[in-house]
Amino acid sequence: MKIRKAGEKDWQGIYRFLSEIVTKGETYAINRDAGEEELKHLWLKKPEACFVAMLDGRLAGSYYLKKNQQGGGSHVCNAGYIVDPEFRGRGLARKMCAHSIETALEMGFEAMQYNFVVSTNEGAIHLWKSMGFQIVGTLPGAFRHPEQGPVEALIMYRFL
Amino acid sequence: MKIRKAGEKDWQGIYRFLSEIVTKGETYAINRDAGEEELKHLWLKKPEACFVAMLDGRLAGSYYLKKNQQGGGSHVCNAGYIVDPEFRGRGLARKMCAHSIETALEMGFEAMQYNFVVSTNEGAIHLWKSMGFQIVGTLPGAFRHPEQGPVEALIMYRFL
Repeated sequence: MKIRKAGEKDWQGIYRFLSEIVTKGETYAINRDAGEEELKHLWLKKPEACFVAMLDGRLAGSYYLKKNQQGGGSHVCNAGYIVDPEFRGRGLARKMCAHSIETALEMGFEAMQYNFVVSTNEGAIHLWKSMGFQIVGTLPGAFRHPEQGPVEALIMYRFL
Repeated sequence: MKIRKAGEKDWQGIYRFLSEIVTKGETYAINRDAGEEELKHLWLKKPEACFVAMLDGRLAGSYYLKKNQQGGGSHVCNAGYIVDPEFRGRGLARKMCAHSIETALEMGFEAMQYNFVVSTNEGAIHLWKSMGFQIVGTLPGAFRHPEQGPVEALIMYRFL
């Protein structure tokens, strides 16, 4: 597996499974009917950095990295990760997380914060914990899961 | 005191003390050298709603109200409040908070979340608690206070 910086030419490869994940609406607080341009802005354009993970010659995952706050909060970054459902269970999320921590350090960040980890996303929570993240906050009923209704969202944090 | 919707014509009145508060850099995670257009976008343009509080015929305070997340998180709003330092100690923040809760309910929101309450801002924390907010998260070292260095930022939340 190889992780490299994402460029304009990677967008269609990212969008292919990002749109699927967003439409499902189970893990990200993004409008389920968000248009392509909105998603492109959110994932590829706005963040300070965007990466893609290549596996078997295909674009199998992606993550973004950005400041979580401005001003006095700009030393803390935020990241988001997606894996093509076809490539699940092959350790991509873990590798992207490790890569994002390295990249964030190189960029001068001192901590990383996940603002909104849906509590039903147990695999992700388990993974982030194993990568050194702690649950530092719990938002009651803050996410409306399409099947399970209102569920908690967690805030997870680690120093780099 | 009267609270009413803010319009374009109120901007200079808001900017007068918003810029002072931002430059001080003690309470908001906004670039201390943010330009006027950036602040206008952030405070007046981007949020779903912006209000001003009039006192003694002057624009003495302002608050914004917006969705805190999209999609499955869009039933939770976020608000930010500023009071002209000249008008502190006259209950404006409390009145604006109460007004924002009413407004948020009218707009169909179900909860309100403050994402980043700087822990040294004790007056605000005390006030939000008295208005029914609970501390649901603590971000270690997430804010660099210009005098006190790295301090905690709190996440506060209440159902409406």
